[in-house]
Amino acid sequence: MAGSGSDVPARSRWSAREAELLAITLQLLQQHGYDRLTVEAVATQAKASKATVYRRWPSKADLVLAAFIEGTRLTVVPPNTGSLRGDLLALGTQVCRQACEHGSTMRAVLNEMSHNPGLKEALQNEFVHQRRLVIDQVLADAVARGEADPAKFNDEIYDLLPGYLVFRSLLSAREPTDETVRILVDEVLLPILR
Amino acid sequence: MAGSGSDVPARSRWSAREAELLAITLQLLQQHGYDRLTVEAVATQAKASKATVYRRWPSKADLVLAAFIEGTRLTVVPPNTGSLRGDLLALGTQVCRQACEHGSTMRAVLNEMSHNPGLKEALQNEFVHQRRLVIDQVLADAVARGEADPAKFNDEIYDLLPGYLVFRSLLSAREPTDETVRILVDEVLLPILR
Repeated sequence: MAGSGSDVPARSRWSAREAELLAITLQLLQQHGYDRLTVEAVATQAKASKATVYRRWPSKADLVLAAFIEGTRLTVVPPNTGSLRGDLLALGTQVCRQACEHGSTMRAVLNEMSHNPGLKEALQNEFVHQRRLVIDQVLADAVARGEADPAKFNDEIYDLLPGYLVFRSLLSAREPTDETVRILVDEVLLPILR
Repeated sequence: MAGSGSDVPARSRWSAREAELLAITLQLLQQHGYDRLTVEAVATQAKASKATVYRRWPSKADLVLAAFIEGTRLTVVPPNTGSLRGDLLALGTQVCRQACEHGSTMRAVLNEMSHNPGLKEALQNEFVHQRRLVIDQVLADAVARGEADPAKFNDEIYDLLPGYLVFRSLLSAREPTDETVRILVDEVLLPILR
């Protein structure tokens, strides 16, 4: 994922067995929520020992963050629709879908982050950074097609689209819709970037 | 706060004694965080019985939400700087300050909301709605001064400014600065609204 034009999602850092443990974690999370998830339940369902799980992920918070990152890894690919508008709409739709699907997990991870700087750093390095690269790629492609003016990119608010949509998905009572994404793209982002 | 031009913050719904219990809750929250806060500690510090606290707020989550709303109530006033730009800068700065000051409380309340629809509704009615009225007032004042075109207001994304800043404060590793607020106002909002 180190930049230009790669279509291949970041490879998993986990073995097949580890990936299986993470998939079970994510499934139990979605069924029961963070607070009622236990490492024991994950180990039982995976026919593994608790020690096996703890050896790899020292706490429930570490396990859940790893499961969340692994579960959303395959979508870390530039959408390559052929137009800036199409790419931004696709990115926005993807953010909404993930935030909806993993909402309670994300809220729990964020709450844990308050007390756990290591978790915060991991989320930053393994989740946020990958998505930054996708946005950079979408903008670079738009510049190459003559669809956007790089002088208009303001690094400070590069994550305005995903940021607002995550706010709407996780923190507000108004879940974002396709229309929310369209308005953001057509009335906010495209006028700025062009 | 039912609309036009009122400068008076919404009156507290609590008695002096109740407000004192909430102030102590907020103070303990900021010292110890949500998870380590106990209703017992609040009661002890307030020289009240636990039953007194529980009679008013049936759970720790209810108590914390009430304390948070009460602690931020006095800032629910349109900034009245005399210009749309000044008002938006003031609103953005206020959002950043509150999200920073009450960050861990807000994260905890949001996490609780996942399991507690009543809490979600209370946050909506008592916190979000009040802030919506302030934004409506700022825009109405700007229209009255001829500074903004009401045809440009898109209700769907009325909370773009506070929403993105809350995202940056609570969910991202990049705390928003005065420069973040300025860029949002000058490069995103004012070009849309004028």
